[in-house]
Amino acid sequence: MSVKMIVVGSVAYDTLQTPKGTRERALGGSATYFSTVASYFTKVGLVGVAGRDFEPAHIAFLKKHGVDLEGFEQVPGQTFHWSGSYGDDFGDATTHATHLNVFEKFDPKLPAAYQKVEFLFLANIHPSLQLKVIERVKKPRLIAMDTMNFWITGALKDLKKVLKKVDVLFINLQEALMLSGEKKLNSAIPALLKMGPGRLVIKMGELGAMTATAKTRFFTPAFLLPSITDPTGAGDSFAGGFMGCLARDGDLTENGFRRAMLYGSAMGAFTCEHFSLDTYKTLTKAKIEARFKALKTMIAVK
Amino acid sequence: MSVKMIVVGSVAYDTLQTPKGTRERALGGSATYFSTVASYFTKVGLVGVAGRDFEPAHIAFLKKHGVDLEGFEQVPGQTFHWSGSYGDDFGDATTHATHLNVFEKFDPKLPAAYQKVEFLFLANIHPSLQLKVIERVKKPRLIAMDTMNFWITGALKDLKKVLKKVDVLFINLQEALMLSGEKKLNSAIPALLKMGPGRLVIKMGELGAMTATAKTRFFTPAFLLPSITDPTGAGDSFAGGFMGCLARDGDLTENGFRRAMLYGSAMGAFTCEHFSLDTYKTLTKAKIEARFKALKTMIAVK
Repeated sequence: MSVKMIVVGSVAYDTLQTPKGTRERALGGSATYFSTVASYFTKVGLVGVAGRDFEPAHIAFLKKHGVDLEGFEQVPGQTFHWSGSYGDDFGDATTHATHLNVFEKFDPKLPAAYQKVEFLFLANIHPSLQLKVIERVKKPRLIAMDTMNFWITGALKDLKKVLKKVDVLFINLQEALMLSGEKKLNSAIPALLKMGPGRLVIKMGELGAMTATAKTRFFTPAFLLPSITDPTGAGDSFAGGFMGCLARDGDLTENGFRRAMLYGSAMGAFTCEHFSLDTYKTLTKAKIEARFKALKTMIAVK
Repeated sequence: MSVKMIVVGSVAYDTLQTPKGTRERALGGSATYFSTVASYFTKVGLVGVAGRDFEPAHIAFLKKHGVDLEGFEQVPGQTFHWSGSYGDDFGDATTHATHLNVFEKFDPKLPAAYQKVEFLFLANIHPSLQLKVIERVKKPRLIAMDTMNFWITGALKDLKKVLKKVDVLFINLQEALMLSGEKKLNSAIPALLKMGPGRLVIKMGELGAMTATAKTRFFTPAFLLPSITDPTGAGDSFAGGFMGCLARDGDLTENGFRRAMLYGSAMGAFTCEHFSLDTYKTLTKAKIEARFKALKTMIAVK
């Protein structure tokens, strides 16, 4: 099966503390979460870099999920390491340390097969790297990107160049206001669309997420979990479910994107149920479909 | 046609400034907005008080909508007068002056016919008055209430007594966190339900509104208006559409409440399109049904 979608992003080890416990050097990183989640929907390739310390068990985990690793490199040095903690309300994480290590000089390599992928996801990395990847891929059906406040304040010029070339922008509510310079979402949406992407996916944490185009709006609630264990990677998992659904079904109509939003919400919630990527040690496609149906019921009105 | 629902709340004149213009002594007040909106759905009675300055044209406006005024009094003195302004982002209003006038000594009178209504809406008035009204009405099918930060900080003891006796609490997101003492909505919801109401309607401004019970959540987006003129009364109009739908259809199942949420969202948006209650000078039932359908389409997924 040839690779239909690739993700370019980080591979990391996370040391973290949540109200439910602590984990040291747990598997993490945007590309890791995205590709693991998307693997339930399509053949996905991971473009990323790790250090020599990256454990064979974690390579095996990705391979077991069918994640293609032709664009994944291991180089001398240590893997990107983030440490942080979450308070009782599971709000924004407090970062204690960020060691970029080998990720600092990350230069995405695109194997020949990856240059013809249909779906491209640019996880939250430096806009200049995102741009480089876009230039190396030949007209994919859909390019989506994620970004964050760090690049909005630190690399706005490059970020604006990337925005002109993507179809879908993933961004959280606060950053949507920051990037657009607007105070209200209703003003931020047209301002962001003017920057390039034809569609926005605006993440609103525990409230859920909205997708917007110039003419449409669609909101999906967050799936209601009895309890959260670790919200790390929830956004990348949302994107993995969203893009995975699109790649699997190939339906880029408004209804197709709405289905993608529900799968995104389902996958974001699955990730929060356990530490790190532990959910995906046992998750089945049947459980994903059941949660998709539950979300559909949550929003249904006769 | 006998009165099926009553609202107890304020009748006011509003002097206001929005980015779209200014109005002096425009018709306003929670009971006025609620009853005018609900009149499109059911026979509604307004329990409220105005001063001798209340204009015959405004009485005629309410009567023309079929609002029952048996519980409406005019007494010596001036009508409640609020003045405020909205900034460019149409966020929270800045209050310039509040003259309670005759509203200060408001003592709701319930005509005999009103004591047997099926639906009761307690608009945002002092909790002790809300309590008085509840005691005078004989087992309605549904009691809903609104409240605000002013009573949460100033009359919490009475407010908690009312909460024990109502079925539905209307509250905005910020106040839901304040009243529950929680930082996140997911924790606030069970805390508020524990205080009494079996259902919450949490208003989130431009994002829309959510209704929650112990077991269900349902989100309705705000209807997307090309432009807003005056958001005053949007919350009371939402409640009027919500309760109006319930009174008209009599469907208190989860699906019935979801339909009510969509009608609420539709009516809140209608109110914002023009100053004061001007929308309702020309609004037709056909336009309401068209907007309800548009909202249904906004949230539909196949």
